[in-house]
Amino acid sequence: MSTTFTGRSATARVRSALAAIEASGRPEIWITVRAADELLTEAAAVDEAVAAGTDLPLAGLVLAVKNNVDVAGIDTTAACPGFAYTPERDAEAVARLRAAGAVVVGATNLDQFATGLVGTRSPHGAVRDARRPDYISGGSSSGSAVAVVLGLADIAIGTDTAGSGRVPAGFQGIVGIKPTLNVVSTAGVVPACRSWDAVTMFARDLATAELAVGVMAGGARPWPSDVRLAAPARPRVAYPSNLPELPQAWADEFGRQIARLQASGVDAEPIEFDVFLQAARLLYDGGLVAERYAAVGHFVDSAGSSPGNPAGLDPTVAGIVRRAGQVPAHSYVADTARLDGLKRQAMARLDGFDALVVPTAPFHPRLEDVAAEPVGVNSKLGTYTNFCNLFDLCAVAVPAGEVDGAQFGLTVVGRAFEDAMVADIARTIEAPPLPPASFAAGAAPAQPLPSGEPWPVRAGASAIPLVVVGAHRRDQPLAHQLETLGAAWDGHVRTAARYRMVSLVTQPPKPGVYRSEDGAELVAERWVLSEAALGQFLAALPEPMLLGSVRLSDGTSAVGFACDAVAAANGADITRYGDWLLALDAVGDETDAPGRGARSTLTDALLTGFTRGLQPGASRK
Amino acid sequence: MSTTFTGRSATARVRSALAAIEASGRPEIWITVRAADELLTEAAAVDEAVAAGTDLPLAGLVLAVKNNVDVAGIDTTAACPGFAYTPERDAEAVARLRAAGAVVVGATNLDQFATGLVGTRSPHGAVRDARRPDYISGGSSSGSAVAVVLGLADIAIGTDTAGSGRVPAGFQGIVGIKPTLNVVSTAGVVPACRSWDAVTMFARDLATAELAVGVMAGGARPWPSDVRLAAPARPRVAYPSNLPELPQAWADEFGRQIARLQASGVDAEPIEFDVFLQAARLLYDGGLVAERYAAVGHFVDSAGSSPGNPAGLDPTVAGIVRRAGQVPAHSYVADTARLDGLKRQAMARLDGFDALVVPTAPFHPRLEDVAAEPVGVNSKLGTYTNFCNLFDLCAVAVPAGEVDGAQFGLTVVGRAFEDAMVADIARTIEAPPLPPASFAAGAAPAQPLPSGEPWPVRAGASAIPLVVVGAHRRDQPLAHQLETLGAAWDGHVRTAARYRMVSLVTQPPKPGVYRSEDGAELVAERWVLSEAALGQFLAALPEPMLLGSVRLSDGTSAVGFACDAVAAANGADITRYGDWLLALDAVGDETDAPGRGARSTLTDALLTGFTRGLQPGASRK
Repeated sequence: MSTTFTGRSATARVRSALAAIEASGRPEIWITVRAADELLTEAAAVDEAVAAGTDLPLAGLVLAVKNNVDVAGIDTTAACPGFAYTPERDAEAVARLRAAGAVVVGATNLDQFATGLVGTRSPHGAVRDARRPDYISGGSSSGSAVAVVLGLADIAIGTDTAGSGRVPAGFQGIVGIKPTLNVVSTAGVVPACRSWDAVTMFARDLATAELAVGVMAGGARPWPSDVRLAAPARPRVAYPSNLPELPQAWADEFGRQIARLQASGVDAEPIEFDVFLQAARLLYDGGLVAERYAAVGHFVDSAGSSPGNPAGLDPTVAGIVRRAGQVPAHSYVADTARLDGLKRQAMARLDGFDALVVPTAPFHPRLEDVAAEPVGVNSKLGTYTNFCNLFDLCAVAVPAGEVDGAQFGLTVVGRAFEDAMVADIARTIEAPPLPPASFAAGAAPAQPLPSGEPWPVRAGASAIPLVVVGAHRRDQPLAHQLETLGAAWDGHVRTAARYRMVSLVTQPPKPGVYRSEDGAELVAERWVLSEAALGQFLAALPEPMLLGSVRLSDGTSAVGFACDAVAAANGADITRYGDWLLALDAVGDETDAPGRGARSTLTDALLTGFTRGLQPGASRK
Repeated sequence: MSTTFTGRSATARVRSALAAIEASGRPEIWITVRAADELLTEAAAVDEAVAAGTDLPLAGLVLAVKNNVDVAGIDTTAACPGFAYTPERDAEAVARLRAAGAVVVGATNLDQFATGLVGTRSPHGAVRDARRPDYISGGSSSGSAVAVVLGLADIAIGTDTAGSGRVPAGFQGIVGIKPTLNVVSTAGVVPACRSWDAVTMFARDLATAELAVGVMAGGARPWPSDVRLAAPARPRVAYPSNLPELPQAWADEFGRQIARLQASGVDAEPIEFDVFLQAARLLYDGGLVAERYAAVGHFVDSAGSSPGNPAGLDPTVAGIVRRAGQVPAHSYVADTARLDGLKRQAMARLDGFDALVVPTAPFHPRLEDVAAEPVGVNSKLGTYTNFCNLFDLCAVAVPAGEVDGAQFGLTVVGRAFEDAMVADIARTIEAPPLPPASFAAGAAPAQPLPSGEPWPVRAGASAIPLVVVGAHRRDQPLAHQLETLGAAWDGHVRTAARYRMVSLVTQPPKPGVYRSEDGAELVAERWVLSEAALGQFLAALPEPMLLGSVRLSDGTSAVGFACDAVAAANGADITRYGDWLLALDAVGDETDAPGRGARSTLTDALLTGFTRGLQPGASRK
């Protein structure tokens, strides 16, 4: 079920992207657009590699990169011309995407030094909303988000410390994935607040964004061995019981979205949101901002002393960075201690929930609103994003319809490493992409990709396949055991023709499988789960069930079920059905039918027990 | 195999401890000794509870508590009289030890605010070495260490940020366990450097210290699901290739200790130690010290402004804290970034090693040496301890003989959560306790306790029992698979009388076990391993082996081995031996004996294969 290829020519897509960039009339999106000949040469190489059979999962996709992330040969400016340096190597995240076939079309505008959620703090000009040019794009990953929604790029790298990879996704009506911190390497990224910086991904649909994040991941932080790889069939989510900063229409829309989520089979319950808001305030009003000075303070100090601002410092950003230089270390240490305390309380609030659902941003301001109150509006915009990285949470922002002419966005937030959980829940919310009519002339947006594996699997989380034939199949009575352990369903398979199946007298009914030199193929399903989940599952497995290596019809092997010798000897053989569900149906048909006196051997076994009192190894007819 | 009771009267031990305190002539050890009547009332309650059958693993042990850790009703001073407050509740670590039967005899002296490794920085007087009173005790947990070595207490709580729970253990010739950060809760502890503070345990032998740490553990930081619970049979340790600050005699002794370790079956190899030393310097010379001001700076500032020093501030400590208040936050942030980089390099150096072995301290100074150079000597003493908490490592300091009249100590350092690994390796080094002749009159030191379970098991790490009957038994050919996964051997068991055993034609030879209504008891062994290790083990298990629930002779169940139906049908029955090792011996005897033509069925099965071509379930004689 892996997705390996978009089926689209990289060359054609580069041409359409260049035409769309030209036609869009949005020069403020870009700090650098690469030369057409360079791009076409790279695209041709991708197309040739694909033609030669190379597996390039991102071939045919055009990538835009926020200009605080290194692309070899393109100046990294962080939207401050005086800060520019020319990197010799791609950032690790960029290198991984390129190696998978994506073509970097250019480097995008941002709030200078990734300091802001507005998209207006740049000497390259404010990036405007794609649909309503008097509104802000959101930031700091402003150019990346607008490039994607306009179809100028299929995927775009952002960064996110306080919401920069989510707020612009919300305003632009696209998907923004903010992975667990350091699951994507920050090597080659200009730090904003080093402790809480994440590399993020924008795309017009969740499947494409997940595919790209899976490729991009592989940072220094290993996945734990008990990572949950999927949401349960009926997830339980929390949402804020009160919604500060939201206008009434937005609050009403949030309520409708929660109701819709409940109707779609998600349990949603309100929680007190105060500790989350307190953490948000720590970032803006407390000592934690010192990280911004540690990142670029010496540059700002020296550049700011030149008359005429030749470095192109944004005055709002420079002011924030300079003030951050005045914080004493003991205040920073005290605030990290406060943050730890708030995190403990917040995690207690989330106890028993699979995720938290919040509005991505509380309202969508005009450019003039931000100009009138550059710091105040910016702070309010972070109400529902700031706490996330501070608490080491992961998040996915998805479009969820419109309100008052604005795009309405929801963000699903989860615990560290529960990225797959969060993506699964976001999938139930995700609204369809905007219609092509919204696109700049010449844009050829990618078709949504088929949904792939949960990306933490691709990104290196421990994941062991487990083959099941009976009560643990999807929608069967014991599937919840695997769902609770975070197992992800991974499709249908068949065993090799070397197993026999009996019915066991258990509640619920189960098949027992054993290897036999006179065996048959059996219909089965595959889950994947973490190492620790498999260990827990085995530790809880009751007699007579066993687990071991099972051969599949494609010649591979995986962990699968068997039953013990006593159960195998005492169960009624149902190998002829080839599929436990057919065997169950047969019982149902028989028990529903008149003439119950004519029950089959199978029915006997399932309903009343079937014991011939034989030793394992005794003769069977 | 759990240790539940010391077998000693708490009342008798309290009396002997009080007599020993009186006789020792060492008032500087204590800041508070509790009243005899209070102690005897508590001790009587412990003895009554034990007599009534309550399981109190620490009953009969007397506990001393460093006076920066709360004991309800005893002033917490951190060795600064003006800082004193009277806690209403025990610190969590203290509460856990008391609940397990330990009696708190009093609160011990320390380097003020736990700032120092010398034991001289206290208005209550310098704590002197137990054997050579012109030498320092080591600190900051000075009183706790000397109380234990003199037999005034059996176990003592210390704290450790830069080595305070290890350096005094080294100088006093006792055991000091510095667990992984936050595995023992720091609630109710006066912070020194909040990010790197650990609660530690002193005892005269490792088994007692491990037992107490296991009781004390249960902090906020959960064990990962892949924690290793034991060292492999042949551990691989690193040691520094050069030994800065060590006099020649100490360096020579270190070399002899490494040679002894190698002779005892541990692989030891030198590594470059520079990055470890650089981290040590960051703590003293860089911005990280700001944590000390965050902890007590406001108190020191206000108390220091009163004339005549009524608060009892130590001038060296007050100077360090005040200077820590001048650090700007961006320097602190920059140094934590440097620390992360050093940690990455250090972890790369330790790649492939189970642990690192270092001298606990580089030399043992006299009181006059410290007085002459109070900061310089202190810094040098931390050479082999400072890096540990900064890199989030765990450590066990053990006595390892004498050098130049001083006690020589080694410390085994391991990765976070590899506390059991480190303890296992330390056990191979641990020298016997000092002879009773060294004790103050009246002291009645506890006998060493029998070695218990690895304490991370008791402390809540995921640990699943796995019962094995064949090639995975200890010293058998596949035991290394379990050792590599960090499994801890947990003794002999017997299965219930419901299994049969056949010999499988595998390399190495293995038994196959299957449940049978005509079964027998089988000799088995039990390991415990983490959830993730069990999952990994199952994922790698080849056909025809299976795992599932096995009933034991005591009526409990555990995960254990079975073989599949084809293997069970085709193997030669060896149930009569009752024990795979006896079956193997029988083969050996037969193959060694003359008359090979008379080989048994078993020998056939093991050496050449035995296949009757029968279906599982076919008749067997």
